[in-house]
Amino acid sequence: MNVFLSQQNYHVGNFQLNKDKILGEVERAKNAGADLIVFSELSICGYPARDFLEFEDFIAQCEAAVLEIAAYSNEIGIIVGAPTRNPIKEGKDLFNSALLLYSGKIMGQANKTLLPNYDVFDEYRYFEPAYEWNTVEFKGKRIALTICEDIWNLGDNPLYRICPMDELMKQSPDLMINISASPFDYDHDDDRKEVIRMNVLKYKIPMIYCNAVGSQTEIVFDGGSLVYAASGELKKELKYFEEDRCLISTNDLYNPSPDSSSSASRVGKDMRVAKSTDPAQILDYLTNDHNIDQVKSALVLGVKDYFQKMGFRKAILGSSGGIDSAVALCIAAEALGADNVTAVLMPSQFSSDHSVTDAVALSTTLGTPYHIVPITTIYESFLHSLDPLFANTPFGIAEENIQSRSRGNLLMALANKFGYVLLNTSNKSELATGYGTLYGDMAGGLSILGDLYKSQVIALARFINQQSNSIPEHILIKPPSAELRPNQKDSDSLPEYEVLDRILYLYIERRKGPQEIIQSGFDPSLVMRVLKMVNMNEYKRNQFCPIIRVSTKAFGIGRRMPIVARYLS
Amino acid sequence: MNVFLSQQNYHVGNFQLNKDKILGEVERAKNAGADLIVFSELSICGYPARDFLEFEDFIAQCEAAVLEIAAYSNEIGIIVGAPTRNPIKEGKDLFNSALLLYSGKIMGQANKTLLPNYDVFDEYRYFEPAYEWNTVEFKGKRIALTICEDIWNLGDNPLYRICPMDELMKQSPDLMINISASPFDYDHDDDRKEVIRMNVLKYKIPMIYCNAVGSQTEIVFDGGSLVYAASGELKKELKYFEEDRCLISTNDLYNPSPDSSSSASRVGKDMRVAKSTDPAQILDYLTNDHNIDQVKSALVLGVKDYFQKMGFRKAILGSSGGIDSAVALCIAAEALGADNVTAVLMPSQFSSDHSVTDAVALSTTLGTPYHIVPITTIYESFLHSLDPLFANTPFGIAEENIQSRSRGNLLMALANKFGYVLLNTSNKSELATGYGTLYGDMAGGLSILGDLYKSQVIALARFINQQSNSIPEHILIKPPSAELRPNQKDSDSLPEYEVLDRILYLYIERRKGPQEIIQSGFDPSLVMRVLKMVNMNEYKRNQFCPIIRVSTKAFGIGRRMPIVARYLS
Repeated sequence: MNVFLSQQNYHVGNFQLNKDKILGEVERAKNAGADLIVFSELSICGYPARDFLEFEDFIAQCEAAVLEIAAYSNEIGIIVGAPTRNPIKEGKDLFNSALLLYSGKIMGQANKTLLPNYDVFDEYRYFEPAYEWNTVEFKGKRIALTICEDIWNLGDNPLYRICPMDELMKQSPDLMINISASPFDYDHDDDRKEVIRMNVLKYKIPMIYCNAVGSQTEIVFDGGSLVYAASGELKKELKYFEEDRCLISTNDLYNPSPDSSSSASRVGKDMRVAKSTDPAQILDYLTNDHNIDQVKSALVLGVKDYFQKMGFRKAILGSSGGIDSAVALCIAAEALGADNVTAVLMPSQFSSDHSVTDAVALSTTLGTPYHIVPITTIYESFLHSLDPLFANTPFGIAEENIQSRSRGNLLMALANKFGYVLLNTSNKSELATGYGTLYGDMAGGLSILGDLYKSQVIALARFINQQSNSIPEHILIKPPSAELRPNQKDSDSLPEYEVLDRILYLYIERRKGPQEIIQSGFDPSLVMRVLKMVNMNEYKRNQFCPIIRVSTKAFGIGRRMPIVARYLS
Repeated sequence: MNVFLSQQNYHVGNFQLNKDKILGEVERAKNAGADLIVFSELSICGYPARDFLEFEDFIAQCEAAVLEIAAYSNEIGIIVGAPTRNPIKEGKDLFNSALLLYSGKIMGQANKTLLPNYDVFDEYRYFEPAYEWNTVEFKGKRIALTICEDIWNLGDNPLYRICPMDELMKQSPDLMINISASPFDYDHDDDRKEVIRMNVLKYKIPMIYCNAVGSQTEIVFDGGSLVYAASGELKKELKYFEEDRCLISTNDLYNPSPDSSSSASRVGKDMRVAKSTDPAQILDYLTNDHNIDQVKSALVLGVKDYFQKMGFRKAILGSSGGIDSAVALCIAAEALGADNVTAVLMPSQFSSDHSVTDAVALSTTLGTPYHIVPITTIYESFLHSLDPLFANTPFGIAEENIQSRSRGNLLMALANKFGYVLLNTSNKSELATGYGTLYGDMAGGLSILGDLYKSQVIALARFINQQSNSIPEHILIKPPSAELRPNQKDSDSLPEYEVLDRILYLYIERRKGPQEIIQSGFDPSLVMRVLKMVNMNEYKRNQFCPIIRVSTKAFGIGRRMPIVARYLS
């Protein structure tokens, strides 16, 4: 049997586009002599469709699209992902299903059993878990058809009390096919390969694994679809961060030399947190070239898809001469084309000369248009208007934030006037500690760097310079500063980033408590101070834009904290 | 047996405070001669603790608090809610439990089976559902102890495939006790009574139902704990929107005249959406005095608890002379005391004279301090700075938004300088349609009116004036306007609110699709235009502050929509 594996980039709710993409690929597969074509999880409507799934109209459109695609299945089997209706009244009304279309109709169906509901996932909000398991027959092959999480319940500490593949094995399948929407983080490609290999070694049949690709608001699906032979040998790995496809003959997947060695180290619940690392090695782990390289690809795709799918073309951002805005500008220019990214330099009386010269040099190298709009007179007009109320109070946070919010206002005015989207340049260390101004430097429609600690932004800057040398060296070496008061440095308010980022990582990615972090060798009062900063600033992050997610725990929809609370705060 | 029922207002993560509150009440119950005292769901840590539940340190603190409380249980049984650990490795690590403490230790435990995971609820994110069911024995009574949702799976269209009370009935309990954290919306008190009565009539034993009270960020728990006799007779109903308690003898709950009539009309899945209403009656439903009265109490409690639990005392808001800011100011003044709420009037060259005179009259009546800070020179300084870039472009949205964002900047500057929290005054109709300026009038730490359609804000204003006549009549009668350009009216950009609000209600609260709404008698192109406005403005609402939730479907954590999508947009 020839199977065509296709990883595509869908647009949530855009039934016409998704259907056209799928049918185009069906045609291609037919021409290639495929018997069966496999698409990813919820390919019909895009993943994640979130609360659109609560609309009867949306589900009806999914059903209509499935039937239209089925009409093209006379000569080829088509496996697509779609929500389907639970035929019984008890339980939730929908399943998350894989459908086998053939001979013009739905010939087989598998419903997802294990519904991820952690981090960015909310599947139990919408779907009833499958409660019966049957293989699907196609051209003499018995297929164990599963959906994403269904194959992840391995090891002796599993997240779910049931293992759907164990159930399916009772019917002696010849082949596993798994359709997924498995997002990127800088550990996840290795985990994915390991899980699939472990399934293959456990069940001793091949696995064809189809992942989605493309960015959906904050979640980047990285593709990298896989084919493993029954022996445990990796036969095919599709590209990462782009659409890709391949044709495989299942005959080639039953080679006789089983490789039963398994390096499985972290499965079960552990797989869902960041890799365990020695505190001394956290920075190396966060900033090594392999991870930074992948992160860069994810960010470029994240920006590109946001604009393309929202129907925007042009971006604007504040370019301060600092490293965050420099890296953000490089990523945006690569994603959208340098012409389409306008940098705005907005110096004040507190700005250093190099804030302008460095930002100009950067835009000149990159070829991004730029404007200089000083904020001095705007800032003074605010102070003047507030003078009756501010009289005899010392310069403080209020005055600093006026500057930052005046810049936000200028950037949004330009965005509104000329149809730009404002890109945000805050990093994860700042967002974690609340070191940023709501409606000021925290403004924007999409955050490029919000899931990168400052140490990672610096590593990404060096990585970019290895490739293109586009960031002026002075931007890389000067001490970070918000330049909102004379001679200000980040280190006046925050611990050094090498220390801060490690504490933050242990707290955010690893969910360690204060005692555990202190026992890793950090100063107790510093640890308590940092955790308090994180927890007290939940209200700021709550109003922040979507962040392109690259870690196992990004701020945003995957981290849901109470705002009104008193815990470590 | 004497049971002391206590509904309390907890602070999430504040173990010391919650423990002290619980122990104070235990003392009171002992003095009243109680055998058993009952507290609400997750009383130990507060509900909802959200992702704090993923921290081992947080769970350990819950366990420690339970043991400390157990030490006071030698003479009285204490039922508290707490997360507990799943003793087996398979499945999630925690249960949502009700614990019976007695003789200084944990004598009984019931785990929650039905984990709500819709709207604002995320319980399956944290908890494993119970998979075995046992009654709890106390002083010769066999108690069917359940947690909130566990008793809601009635009717022939249930949300879950299992009914824990059916399981517990196999052990012939004498009494049902349910501990809940059941939030307010303007239908929910009736639903709750109906569900409890249906359980009582079905199982023919009494029910003691303990609900939480108090506001937790956006969710208001309204109390109203209930005791029903086995006959179906309501024996006790605790107060709404405040802490309350009562002592009851279970002997009084077995009176012999069963009232088996049931008016059950909507149970099962239907109970989780807004009440079905005729399109012609939607406005009456949304604005009737009974609902508006309750909504007002919920808003006052929501504001009060936000400030108290966050440790703030003083608020600021922009007072435009319009009805939204007038109502918000009244609610805030009632919640925090008039002295603690400062109104800021920020007229521009586009402001009408009455915008200032009406706002001054309002503050004078209410006794709230106010400042007048015109934005004219600030606005001009922005235009001047942008002149090189804006030259030869017509006045438009950019210029309007500069004004709104300058006001946001002024309000935040005052908040930063003097320690105020900025209260937001946007209403649900504006948020739905995107008729507001990000970082401008959409700024603020808490939204008072964001879950009230404009029609409801008007009804609430009239209701307030029936009570206190504090809103100048001119504010109620003038046509709504943002006053960002000459002679602007809301109706230039939006349909009339009476039409708009009904379409929004059908789409948002009832999840009706375009065809269904059109069939309700609305103009097809208008319906499509409104739904498109709603869906295209998801990105704005995504950056909005928490909204005090009063409906079955508020914007915020209970409504999770993709931002990058193309559906009805």
